[in-house]
Amino acid sequence: MTAFFTSNATETTQPLPPSDSRERVSQWLQSFQDKVCEGLEAADGQATFKQDSWTREEGGGGRSRVMREGRVFEQGGVNFSEVWGKDLPPSILVQRPEAKGHSFYATGTSMVLHPRNPYIPTVHLNYRYFEAGPVWWFGGGIDLTPYYPFEEDVIHFHQTLKDACDRHNPEYYPTFKLWCDEYFYLKHRKETRGVGGIFFDYQDTKGDLYPIAYPGSQSDTLAAQRSQEVGTIENRTWEDLFAFVQSCGDAFLPAYVPIVERRQNTEYSDRQRQFQLYRRGRYVEFNLVYDRGTIFGLQTNGRTESILMSLPPMVRWEYGYEPEPGSPEARLYEIFLKPQDWINWSKNGAH
Amino acid sequence: MTAFFTSNATETTQPLPPSDSRERVSQWLQSFQDKVCEGLEAADGQATFKQDSWTREEGGGGRSRVMREGRVFEQGGVNFSEVWGKDLPPSILVQRPEAKGHSFYATGTSMVLHPRNPYIPTVHLNYRYFEAGPVWWFGGGIDLTPYYPFEEDVIHFHQTLKDACDRHNPEYYPTFKLWCDEYFYLKHRKETRGVGGIFFDYQDTKGDLYPIAYPGSQSDTLAAQRSQEVGTIENRTWEDLFAFVQSCGDAFLPAYVPIVERRQNTEYSDRQRQFQLYRRGRYVEFNLVYDRGTIFGLQTNGRTESILMSLPPMVRWEYGYEPEPGSPEARLYEIFLKPQDWINWSKNGAH
Repeated sequence: MTAFFTSNATETTQPLPPSDSRERVSQWLQSFQDKVCEGLEAADGQATFKQDSWTREEGGGGRSRVMREGRVFEQGGVNFSEVWGKDLPPSILVQRPEAKGHSFYATGTSMVLHPRNPYIPTVHLNYRYFEAGPVWWFGGGIDLTPYYPFEEDVIHFHQTLKDACDRHNPEYYPTFKLWCDEYFYLKHRKETRGVGGIFFDYQDTKGDLYPIAYPGSQSDTLAAQRSQEVGTIENRTWEDLFAFVQSCGDAFLPAYVPIVERRQNTEYSDRQRQFQLYRRGRYVEFNLVYDRGTIFGLQTNGRTESILMSLPPMVRWEYGYEPEPGSPEARLYEIFLKPQDWINWSKNGAH
Repeated sequence: MTAFFTSNATETTQPLPPSDSRERVSQWLQSFQDKVCEGLEAADGQATFKQDSWTREEGGGGRSRVMREGRVFEQGGVNFSEVWGKDLPPSILVQRPEAKGHSFYATGTSMVLHPRNPYIPTVHLNYRYFEAGPVWWFGGGIDLTPYYPFEEDVIHFHQTLKDACDRHNPEYYPTFKLWCDEYFYLKHRKETRGVGGIFFDYQDTKGDLYPIAYPGSQSDTLAAQRSQEVGTIENRTWEDLFAFVQSCGDAFLPAYVPIVERRQNTEYSDRQRQFQLYRRGRYVEFNLVYDRGTIFGLQTNGRTESILMSLPPMVRWEYGYEPEPGSPEARLYEIFLKPQDWINWSKNGAH
């Protein structure tokens, strides 16, 4: 691995990370992967994760873990990767031009779970860390995709994330919640992917909460507006941000497992199963059409099987489907596939 | 609809099309849609196409036809559309800069069929015509995606297309066959989508067979090399090109229906069905990650349900699948998912 900080130090306007930054983040991401897999195996109670370790020709590697045909989880993947190389892609350099000409280091843990029971939501998580020349940043998030509408599940999920965020900065949750709604949006369907959660990227000690130059970002989004109102958050350190990401990670099992436990024994019939398979199609559409991580990975010789572990094991498309008026399926579309203020949901009265 | 050829005529270096060009192409594409639907209904013998007519706010509309749960076809869509508007997208203007600032007209018929029996291949077809300011062109093609390897089917398909092409120009088939192999390629899988067929775009009276500036094109592809060897084909008229596209269209039923008839009664088990569902995932990956028409349509407020009619009704993904050595599935990967000279297949000896 090459040294990352030998270049002209006057370029940087933020403090360098600790000298052991990469090892610390990578270690934590791996122990996080372990902890999550243990928690999910316990929740499933039957299937276990199988691991594939892999290396990347250009530098680095990872460990992909898949659970299949479990009691709860029809399929679940939890990946850790740590890669390095010569150049970041142009889409990232737009946001961090200081990284140009520098080698990069990137590490992350990502996860998608596709439960069997249609009353249990799908969940996605991804936390990552980059270093390139004078710049470094944290990114990631978590979002929930229910098939059937249960307010209490969604409120619990959002409240758990908010509590984790609030321990670090009260501005995090409100801004990253908006960003999540805006990122996980299927323009061609005019639908959110699910009920969101939190999403952030390019978090460092000098940046605003929502960097306007973020690839694909727009200055007129709600997340951008809120970030501008908040202004630059002063005195954040590398340690603060790392601790924040750790809190987000630690919030995963408490945010999701109680929902699994509450819904796992609810009986369902072919109607719910067919709707779940149909809605999984939206997951595929989002990941292949919009998700920058997926598209970037596929186009740059990433490990295809690990990248596409996020796709559901079984999916259905149906031309011209529309939910029956007044049905639970219709309620999902009308309320849960639009951005909502879930934290104040009860206060504002049920819809 | 606005007039298309009122601009400075000195810009154009090719003859204008006939004054009734749009009506003639559109009429033919609609009668072609009718004929294809009749032929497919006859082949299915049970299900019929249901039509949705739609209009587009920015100008134009179409008629989408879907067959579902047929005896032969699990799902099939045949779309006709005719649209116009202010500006062509930048990706097309790269290739035809003369069209910049001009309103455009585009019409086409496209089709994807997903048979139920895994021994019958999926087929895709699309023929289209554009006018914009001083320029116009024809494009399209057809390609076959088998799930199981039958040389005789593939040879018949390619020979029928070659015969149709050869009636117009002996250079068409060899060049457009290479272009098809290169276009329907999944880089992240290192696989062709299927056994190809023919594909072409930007065909007019002045262009080369394979325009180097074609969005996504590369000058070092086999299709580009062959086109350069052939050079510009002189004396092609609008009538010649329209007649060529008509011949390609007319070749569809004779190219495909005999394969359906030959394979429709072959018994299959869950193994073949599961492999078919798995391979259909590649169709989804291609259409959502690479297909310019699909991506452009989704990102520009096209009619989503019509665009995504190409997606299979049921699909499966499986982490880390590899075909069993020596199996028919392995033979598909080894021979049929790589470009092959199918016309000279028998001459060159079976693999």
